Amino acid sequence: MSPAPTGAATRRAEAAFAAIEAVDRPEIWITLRSRGDVLAEAASIDAAVARGADLPLAGLLLAVKNNVDVAGIPTTAACPGFAYVPEQDAEAVARLRAAGALVLGATNLDQFATGLVGTRSPYGAVRDSRRPDRISGGSSSGSAVAVALGLVDIAIGTDTAGSGRVPAGLQGIVGIKATLGVVSTAGVVPACRSWDAVTIFARHLATAELAMGAMAGNARPWPTDTKLAAPARPRVAYPASLPALPPAWAAEFGRQVDRLRESGVDAEPIEFGAFLQAARLLYDGALVAERFAAVGSFLEQYDGGRDSKAGIDPTVEGIIRAAGTVPAHRYVADTARLLELKSTAMAQLEGFDALLVPTAPFHPTLAEVAADPVRVNSLLGTYTNFCNLFDLCAVAVPAGEVDGAQFGVTVVGRAFDDAVAADIARRVETTPAPSGLFAAGAAPGAPALDATAGAARPSSPVPWPVAAGAAAVPLVVVGAHRKGQPLAHELEELGAFWDGHVRTAARYRMVALDTMPPKPGVYRSDDGAELVGERWLLPPAALGTFLASLPEPMLLGSVQLRDGTAAVGFACDAVAAAGGEDITAWGDWLADRSTEPRPQTLWRDLGVAALAGFSRGERG
Amino acid sequence: MSPAPTGAATRRAEAAFAAIEAVDRPEIWITLRSRGDVLAEAASIDAAVARGADLPLAGLLLAVKNNVDVAGIPTTAACPGFAYVPEQDAEAVARLRAAGALVLGATNLDQFATGLVGTRSPYGAVRDSRRPDRISGGSSSGSAVAVALGLVDIAIGTDTAGSGRVPAGLQGIVGIKATLGVVSTAGVVPACRSWDAVTIFARHLATAELAMGAMAGNARPWPTDTKLAAPARPRVAYPASLPALPPAWAAEFGRQVDRLRESGVDAEPIEFGAFLQAARLLYDGALVAERFAAVGSFLEQYDGGRDSKAGIDPTVEGIIRAAGTVPAHRYVADTARLLELKSTAMAQLEGFDALLVPTAPFHPTLAEVAADPVRVNSLLGTYTNFCNLFDLCAVAVPAGEVDGAQFGVTVVGRAFDDAVAADIARRVETTPAPSGLFAAGAAPGAPALDATAGAARPSSPVPWPVAAGAAAVPLVVVGAHRKGQPLAHELEELGAFWDGHVRTAARYRMVALDTMPPKPGVYRSDDGAELVGERWLLPPAALGTFLASLPEPMLLGSVQLRDGTAAVGFACDAVAAAGGEDITAWGDWLADRSTEPRPQTLWRDLGVAALAGFSRGERG
Repeated sequence: MSPAPTGAATRRAEAAFAAIEAVDRPEIWITLRSRGDVLAEAASIDAAVARGADLPLAGLLLAVKNNVDVAGIPTTAACPGFAYVPEQDAEAVARLRAAGALVLGATNLDQFATGLVGTRSPYGAVRDSRRPDRISGGSSSGSAVAVALGLVDIAIGTDTAGSGRVPAGLQGIVGIKATLGVVSTAGVVPACRSWDAVTIFARHLATAELAMGAMAGNARPWPTDTKLAAPARPRVAYPASLPALPPAWAAEFGRQVDRLRESGVDAEPIEFGAFLQAARLLYDGALVAERFAAVGSFLEQYDGGRDSKAGIDPTVEGIIRAAGTVPAHRYVADTARLLELKSTAMAQLEGFDALLVPTAPFHPTLAEVAADPVRVNSLLGTYTNFCNLFDLCAVAVPAGEVDGAQFGVTVVGRAFDDAVAADIARRVETTPAPSGLFAAGAAPGAPALDATAGAARPSSPVPWPVAAGAAAVPLVVVGAHRKGQPLAHELEELGAFWDGHVRTAARYRMVALDTMPPKPGVYRSDDGAELVGERWLLPPAALGTFLASLPEPMLLGSVQLRDGTAAVGFACDAVAAAGGEDITAWGDWLADRSTEPRPQTLWRDLGVAALAGFSRGERG
Repeated sequence: MSPAPTGAATRRAEAAFAAIEAVDRPEIWITLRSRGDVLAEAASIDAAVARGADLPLAGLLLAVKNNVDVAGIPTTAACPGFAYVPEQDAEAVARLRAAGALVLGATNLDQFATGLVGTRSPYGAVRDSRRPDRISGGSSSGSAVAVALGLVDIAIGTDTAGSGRVPAGLQGIVGIKATLGVVSTAGVVPACRSWDAVTIFARHLATAELAMGAMAGNARPWPTDTKLAAPARPRVAYPASLPALPPAWAAEFGRQVDRLRESGVDAEPIEFGAFLQAARLLYDGALVAERFAAVGSFLEQYDGGRDSKAGIDPTVEGIIRAAGTVPAHRYVADTARLLELKSTAMAQLEGFDALLVPTAPFHPTLAEVAADPVRVNSLLGTYTNFCNLFDLCAVAVPAGEVDGAQFGVTVVGRAFDDAVAADIARRVETTPAPSGLFAAGAAPGAPALDATAGAARPSSPVPWPVAAGAAAVPLVVVGAHRKGQPLAHELEELGAFWDGHVRTAARYRMVALDTMPPKPGVYRSDDGAELVGERWLLPPAALGTFLASLPEPMLLGSVQLRDGTAAVGFACDAVAAAGGEDITAWGDWLADRSTEPRPQTLWRDLGVAALAGFSRGERG
């Protein structure tokens, strides 16, 4: 992690306040912290950085959706009558702050996180960052627009039915909705407790991943076979038909599928009915009773006479009050139906590494939403609703433009396949060109802040689930398991993450083994040399599985590296070590050995012989 | 697996029919299959055995609770009006039959599995196997008594709140309630779908485990770190206070804790409040709505006029009808409360391998239950109710007698710790002495069948979760990781199962390594010999974790065994192999080497020196 420049947090905070004034979007914020408080905290972050503190998010500016507690800021959930002032940060906020993030304020949302539009708030409808006659998307409306306008680097959202993804799609930014439970919901106003997730918005996937690594934990334990990367050639499913998308949007989605294919992904259409039926359960079924369980007792205080000061949104109120009359046995029956649909959907995904969907199906105007608030809202969730219900993770990324709107796609993965989904999303991600407010020069402060985005784009050295607590064991390879070599796929299929080049301590010798494919054999020697290798990170279960199928004469054990660390590494057994030609002088199994005709030529020829169908006996 | 003797299934089935007639307990059965059908199926099992078919349960007699489908037998759930005739066996039944079990019939139960007493059935109250004025326990009443009386070897029960354990406790038999989801509930009439489990009763734990291995599967996948055994010295929690137990029963539980301690277990009391509160949620809360979701629409057909032919039990009807009026938001709130209680309870269990509880707290008479049917029923579940709600597994085993009643305890484990719970239960299990009906000679047929129990007590060669699909990797050790040796605890702590002695192929040499503790170093050699070792089975994640912390010069790779199989085994690196004294001639690191003073004496002395505090330098 390269530390931020001295005083960076302070300078960035000052630029942010200038940008906030310049963009003139007061509806983004429910509470903006005072300049004095923010600058004081920025100074303390700068001082900590100067002291050499390990703050991976040092000075990253953070906005927090106002259904998530920030100590001292009223938590309103966009309902003034509901407000309380928390004494503690929500755990997600506390973790980001502990990593050096700087909270600027609390953002507007669809009341009680009930909506995907961004208009259901007495604090004002949040408008699109570029075309103010359009909606922002919601419910994490203020957080998404604050990131899109460059007012902050990262923002916390929440997501039950798509609230952390739909606004990311409409605002041309990244939204990560991790596997349920890996980010704590302590200190968050529940929407539907069973399916609520705390999410991150950022302009760049790398920034969002860095934040996730700091924000997530191990409260729902990462399984010991959690994949740490997508395979080299992923298989991605996409819906065979695209309801709710206008033709131009459907065509754009097709182009994104093509782009994914061009990047080396196998993409195949699947039957999508079970996914869509789950979405309908959320709106037309009994599951909405969770919303009444969350805030119904608050609404019931206002029975028998409207208290206008409470600021209750009539659309939200209608949804939640209706949810109070649902009988429990219908909820139980719908839950059982949901499990059946999940089972069908997971069968459709069998053999695929992830699912690609459009994030939002269209971008409505404020007027269109006002004319038909419930129906438009429900259509917006077509490609997001099923996700939390099926316990899937999701990464929404910007993917160009269509009809003047920003187009986004979401990579959906199985529970705990967060690193797999991020890897595939990386292949699609585009950073949208400045336009709208920025292009028009209407926000002189914002580009200034955006210009410092380099500092706000550090990338994590490991997959974010590892930073968040998923177990990973380093394995050093020197030969056929190096990236691009014939056996690398064995590690990739087990979810291994390629972690770069390393060099062993000067205590190993290397021989050429008579195996197919050709491999080096390594053994410890008092007369050893340094060898070039590569390090993978493996889930512990993958390492155990790999060892269980490792053929003679290969062995695994502790290898010392030149940097003084140790890792699991390969050795060969005594018979193989004694029988192989010594190639220690190569130093690197893949080195250009054109000046040494033997044994390089020998192994190359063997490879060719194998391709030509020569038997092992003929080679021997 | 030793095959059953020729014709055994036929002889055992004939004896069973004689015993069924002799015990004269018609209330056990709702449908007893015809003698002709059973004998025909027995003959086909005997023929398959004679052909050498691999049938691990060949000829084991099976009773099936009548809320679980058996093709061709009406599934009544103890409600005649509810009956339907399934065309297929439930998956659990099909799996047991595929392994050679022979279904005798379908057994009585508390209607819709709603009860822990065994009296709530129009087919009659099922009476205790020994004292007919007492209840059997329920809801799997007929299944438990059929096993206790020796009429069958194994029986299928179901368990939501304790229905597979309370009757096991009262009948002095074994009941295994595995981790939710590992046994399919397809073809089972739901009670509370979220918490229903299919269970096994048997007179002996080994028989029950063998059946579980055949009946369970991998539908809810076994995690890759599923423990395959309890540690050598387990830590077991027990409730610090024992509500609902009469003093004599509490004293007997104390004696069982003492027995467990004497067997080498560390037992400690824990605060039990959260467990008891979860039990109350099930009876007094909204969770009971699951029962209405399951069969409420059936009961509603009878609104507005009692249809006596439907045979609806009034107590059961009252419970289920009341469950239909619960609002969904209360169900959601209770589910949230349940998760809080689970979190508290799991914190109490931190550091323990399992929890020991009494199975049933007392043994009521039929009259006591009739006088206060709901309260007595609810007290009976004091030590069982929390289990499925908290996603725990349980093994109920007989543990002596108290006040003329059979006393039982249950070992409760975390989800997927089924092998751990079974290992600890094995330390407590006692086989009750014949008494009651048997002692009085009232059941001449029964002992005759029981005498063949030797054939019905095969033991599985692997922990039952492995038979059911949990992954396990064999690891062969020759030295310090052998059972009882200084490093065996490293494997035991990772949940490894000790799988017996093995002998390598004649292709390895062994040296004495200068390590502490002393270890042999093994390397492959063209001039090798057979070495004695031991095989452990490890979860794949445990093998990866073990490898990640393995110190130089130890290595792991494929080892060939004399029997032609391969396993992961130890090797040492080239420097260590060259530097150690050759001890291949020992053949076995633990062999008595008293006639060879060196190097045995050397290593023994080094061990003593280390204990006396000598430094490595002084030894060197």
